[in-house]
Amino acid sequence: MNPTACLLIIGNEVLSGRTRDANLQFLATRLGEMGIPLREVRVIPDVPEIIVDTVNEVRGKYDHVFTTGGIGPTHDDITSECVAMAFGVPWVVHEESRANMAADYARRDPPVEMNAARLRMATLPLGAVPIVCPMTSAPGFSMGNVHVMAGVPRIMQSMFDALAPSLQGGVPVVSRAVHAIGVFEGNIAEGLEAIQKRYPDLDIGSYPFYRQSAGVPGAVPSFPGGGVSLVSKGVSLSDVEAATAEITAMLVAMGASPIQGEPT
Amino acid sequence: MNPTACLLIIGNEVLSGRTRDANLQFLATRLGEMGIPLREVRVIPDVPEIIVDTVNEVRGKYDHVFTTGGIGPTHDDITSECVAMAFGVPWVVHEESRANMAADYARRDPPVEMNAARLRMATLPLGAVPIVCPMTSAPGFSMGNVHVMAGVPRIMQSMFDALAPSLQGGVPVVSRAVHAIGVFEGNIAEGLEAIQKRYPDLDIGSYPFYRQSAGVPGAVPSFPGGGVSLVSKGVSLSDVEAATAEITAMLVAMGASPIQGEPT
Repeated sequence: MNPTACLLIIGNEVLSGRTRDANLQFLATRLGEMGIPLREVRVIPDVPEIIVDTVNEVRGKYDHVFTTGGIGPTHDDITSECVAMAFGVPWVVHEESRANMAADYARRDPPVEMNAARLRMATLPLGAVPIVCPMTSAPGFSMGNVHVMAGVPRIMQSMFDALAPSLQGGVPVVSRAVHAIGVFEGNIAEGLEAIQKRYPDLDIGSYPFYRQSAGVPGAVPSFPGGGVSLVSKGVSLSDVEAATAEITAMLVAMGASPIQGEPT
Repeated sequence: MNPTACLLIIGNEVLSGRTRDANLQFLATRLGEMGIPLREVRVIPDVPEIIVDTVNEVRGKYDHVFTTGGIGPTHDDITSECVAMAFGVPWVVHEESRANMAADYARRDPPVEMNAARLRMATLPLGAVPIVCPMTSAPGFSMGNVHVMAGVPRIMQSMFDALAPSLQGGVPVVSRAVHAIGVFEGNIAEGLEAIQKRYPDLDIGSYPFYRQSAGVPGAVPSFPGGGVSLVSKGVSLSDVEAATAEITAMLVAMGASPIQGEPT
C-alpha cells in the first residue's frame, strides 16, 4: 500500500477569496508522481484551536500531512506555534535557523534587522527538523509526519524540493488519457462503467470539456468542438494501458475518433 | 452572528492534480459578499463512505454546505446518491426534472437519447429542491442545508446564481486594502499586531507580494518592486475604515508611500 498524504491550506485569505490557492495542484501532482497520493485537502482559517485540532486529527489518519501558509513574521502567522501545541512540545528558538537568518539579513543592502517578529520565523516546535531552501533563510520544518511550508507558491515549491528527497515514496501513480471530440458523457457512461468494473484497482475518470461557440454565450452546451476526456489512473501501468485500449475500442465502435494523449 | 458556510469539493481529479479547482475562489467571494462567510473547505475523493461521513459531519457544523462535482452521468458521479444516503432518504427520479431534461434533449439536433445514465442526473434525494439554471437542464439541488452543484465552473456559477436569492444572507463582509512597495513584513509586524488588538472583531491580514527581478531567478527575495498588502476585513465598515487609516499612518510614519486600493 502506498503511503498517503493530506494537505492543510491554512489562511483566512483563501477562505475569503482574496487569494487563489496555487499550491494544491503542485503538491497533488508531485506527490502522485512520488507514490504518496493526496487523499484529502482542508482549507482552514488562522484560528489556533482549529489548526491544533485539525493537525491532530489528520496526522493520525494519514502517513504525511503537508501544511502551507502561516509561517511569516506577522500576527496572523500562527501555524508554527499551533503545530507545537498540537504535538504538546515547547515552541523555542532554533539556534541554527536563527544564525542562518541573521547571517542572511546582515548580507542584505541595506542590512535587515533581526527583530522580534523575524525571530518568530526561527522559532520551531522542539524536535522539529528545519526545511532549508534556496528561496529564503526562514525555514519550513518537519515535526514528526507534519511538514510545514510557506504559503507563497515559489517559496513553497522550493521548500518541497528540499524536503522531497527525505520522503519515502511509494509506487508512482501513472495515468493515460483518451480524448474524444463530439462525444457526450451520457452516451459512454454505461460502457465506461463496465470497463471500470473490470479494473477495480484503477481510478477511471470522465471529464467533459467545452469550447464555447462564438456568439452563443450561455447556450446549453452542445459540444461544438467539445467532448470528453477519459483518464485511467493507477499504480499498474499494464492495467492502465489495457483499460485505455478498451476505452479507445469503445469509442471507435461508436464512430468516434479518439486521440490518446497526456491527461489534460 | 452571520450564517456560516462550508464547501466540499468532491472529485479524485482535484486530489490527483489533473484538474485545478476554479470554484473555491468564486464561492468564497460571493458568499462573503452575501454575509455567509466560508469557514472551511474540504477536497475529498469519489468514495461513498467518505462523502456520506463528511456531508453528515459538516452539515451539523455549518449553516450551509455547498458541494461541487460528481453530479454528471458517469460511474464516478456519485454525489447525489451519497447525499441521499447521508440524509437517510431514498434516491428517486424527480419527475419534473426528468421531464425538463427529456424536453431539452428532444429539442437538440440531433436529438439526445434519455438513457439510464442521463436519468441518473434527474434522480435526487427524496425531498430535494432542484436548482434549475440556464446552462443545463440537469439540475443541482438543495437537500436541507446542503446545496449540490456541478463541478464545471460555468455551470456551477450559473447554479449558484439561481440558488443565491433563496439563501438568507447576513451582514456583508467588507474589506479595504493598503499596499506599500518596498516594505518588509518583518518591519511592520509589531505595529500591525497592535492595530489588530485594537480591532478584535476585524480580520487584519498581511500578504507580501513579489515582483521577480529580471535576470535573478531564484534569488532571495529582496523586494525590488515588491512589498506588502495589508487587508482589513469585517462586518463593520467604520471599524474597517478606522483600522485602514491607522495602518496607513503607521506606513507613512515609516517613510513608506502607501496606496489604498482594492484587495488584490
